[in-house]
Amino acid sequence: MEIKICRNPSPKEKPSGKLGFGRIFTDHMFVMNYTAGRGWHDARIVPYGPLSLDPSAMVFHYAQEIFEGLKAYRTASGEIRLFRPYENARRMNNSADRLCMPQIDPEDWVTAVKTLVELEKDWVPYEEGTSLYIRPFMIATDAMLGVHPSKTYQFIIILSPVGSYYAGGLDPVRIYIETKYVRAVRGGTGEAKTGGNYAASIKSQEISEELGYSQVLWLDGVEQKYIEEVGAMNVFFKIAGKIVTPALVGSILPGITRKSAIELLRDWGYEVEERRLSAEEVESAAKNGDLEEMFGTGTAAVISPVGELLIGDTHIKINGGKIGPVSQKLYDTLTGIQWGRIEDTRGWITKI
Amino acid sequence: MEIKICRNPSPKEKPSGKLGFGRIFTDHMFVMNYTAGRGWHDARIVPYGPLSLDPSAMVFHYAQEIFEGLKAYRTASGEIRLFRPYENARRMNNSADRLCMPQIDPEDWVTAVKTLVELEKDWVPYEEGTSLYIRPFMIATDAMLGVHPSKTYQFIIILSPVGSYYAGGLDPVRIYIETKYVRAVRGGTGEAKTGGNYAASIKSQEISEELGYSQVLWLDGVEQKYIEEVGAMNVFFKIAGKIVTPALVGSILPGITRKSAIELLRDWGYEVEERRLSAEEVESAAKNGDLEEMFGTGTAAVISPVGELLIGDTHIKINGGKIGPVSQKLYDTLTGIQWGRIEDTRGWITKI
Repeated sequence: MEIKICRNPSPKEKPSGKLGFGRIFTDHMFVMNYTAGRGWHDARIVPYGPLSLDPSAMVFHYAQEIFEGLKAYRTASGEIRLFRPYENARRMNNSADRLCMPQIDPEDWVTAVKTLVELEKDWVPYEEGTSLYIRPFMIATDAMLGVHPSKTYQFIIILSPVGSYYAGGLDPVRIYIETKYVRAVRGGTGEAKTGGNYAASIKSQEISEELGYSQVLWLDGVEQKYIEEVGAMNVFFKIAGKIVTPALVGSILPGITRKSAIELLRDWGYEVEERRLSAEEVESAAKNGDLEEMFGTGTAAVISPVGELLIGDTHIKINGGKIGPVSQKLYDTLTGIQWGRIEDTRGWITKI
Repeated sequence: MEIKICRNPSPKEKPSGKLGFGRIFTDHMFVMNYTAGRGWHDARIVPYGPLSLDPSAMVFHYAQEIFEGLKAYRTASGEIRLFRPYENARRMNNSADRLCMPQIDPEDWVTAVKTLVELEKDWVPYEEGTSLYIRPFMIATDAMLGVHPSKTYQFIIILSPVGSYYAGGLDPVRIYIETKYVRAVRGGTGEAKTGGNYAASIKSQEISEELGYSQVLWLDGVEQKYIEEVGAMNVFFKIAGKIVTPALVGSILPGITRKSAIELLRDWGYEVEERRLSAEEVESAAKNGDLEEMFGTGTAAVISPVGELLIGDTHIKINGGKIGPVSQKLYDTLTGIQWGRIEDTRGWITKI
């Protein structure tokens, strides 16, 4: 893949102060076009700027769109590195398959990310816990209103220097278990990283925030009994010494931080069960004192300890609302590997 | 609502020959902006042209998007008319509510449609069965990557002169019953007209076309047993003299043609049952000779008789693969009212 680079003649000033999440974008973006019969073409890096699309473009009407999320980290020695980017490339291809969108060679995918981040390396922030969030996404651009797979697409990568996803940092979050609305169901698009899953989640997110909870925990769409995921993360429970996380049954996003956490936990000798886990089981484990920890895993937050669950009228306090030792160790290890404080012995790091 | 009009200085030539569906657009579009705290503003009609949106605009990532579909019809006397546009306006507000998007006053909504169609009246085609398809849609435009309701939106209306949705015209269609993939589930977004539902349907649509079927019939997401809808239409069955159609249980789009068909059928003395109806019941009705007709209802196709169903390996032939009398009468009546050949005694018509 040859990438043409057209430099931005008027680079922005780098931000100072609080970065937030996904509000500031860098000077350039990667763009590549797909046309059926011709394949991907015109890979280019151009100044960050508006997309110009026909109002009938399929993405506006039928949400034929997928995305990924990963981060570039700056180590103390100034090195810039990615965490398991090939996993993102492969997952995007799985999402593409579900949405009838074209595949991208993972080598090209990672090359595009690396080339863009390299060009924007001064945008990778220096402060502890900050990083450069990378958002690759693909949209359907056919200018027609029939419901069919588009024949043309754009694959775009944008970059955003970010602080911590949660304003509260590693402080345990309070989570609301949604018992009315459903995010995904087996046979649906839950395991794909596609816009419609997120659109479906916004209403519950709003309700949970009104109730003072920061995230929504989704139950399965069939029985509305079994724990699935939090929109922005997978979830783990420590119950009577064992680690339990919902199995990837088709309606749950296969998280890369989830996968990494499982590998680390097993290396450390924990028994990790990937299985069905009902909200009822969590509730009764809490009652009899077996629920020792709960945490979420995701690229944005890495590890997010959960201090409280609300299910119906029942408040479940976890580990006294404090971070547990497993959550803390996972956070320290994962961020240690990401920011280069701990040696990467697993081949998880791709250097820029 | 005041609408500023900026005329297109270079109008296109009107199309000649086959129109197809949703491939040709007129010279102008309606656009209106929403900003939280300020409400809807800057209603305007401008030359049809590309939308310019930040690559981080929420619609590209989280599919916060809804749409509607209706048609303008030209009568033999040259009058141009809409069919139940207030129903579309109200349904769009229901979709907006599910997706946490702003409401639009139905009066303003219909005024916007009428003003645009009036300006583009020469684009309403003359040939039998043709019409001007109207596509109002709303998209989330906030330039940020957090998963939250956007604070800014655009509401846009585009117009497309169309022939018949189905290339085969009123010829009965062959329909594939999807038993693996799921379009929607109760608690999800199935009853909203939002992009994600359509994105979820594309894969099955592709499979059905490979098998030689033109549309997919969806089963419920919970038990995968009960008939729900075809992506572009609601479905009706005539079983032993009675009309049966799936009840609106939350995962089914509340079609305006569906509603109109029920009103007409009841006026004609048919018993219409809105209830749960399993694929098994349809299959056994077919076996014992009770399945007399099946048809779909939708704005695009109006009435679409179904001549064959495929469920698993079982082919169900309906009414010998021919149009049934109820389908034909509904089609004649609805299109008669729409195109002005039959008097509108129900207040369904809004004249331009």
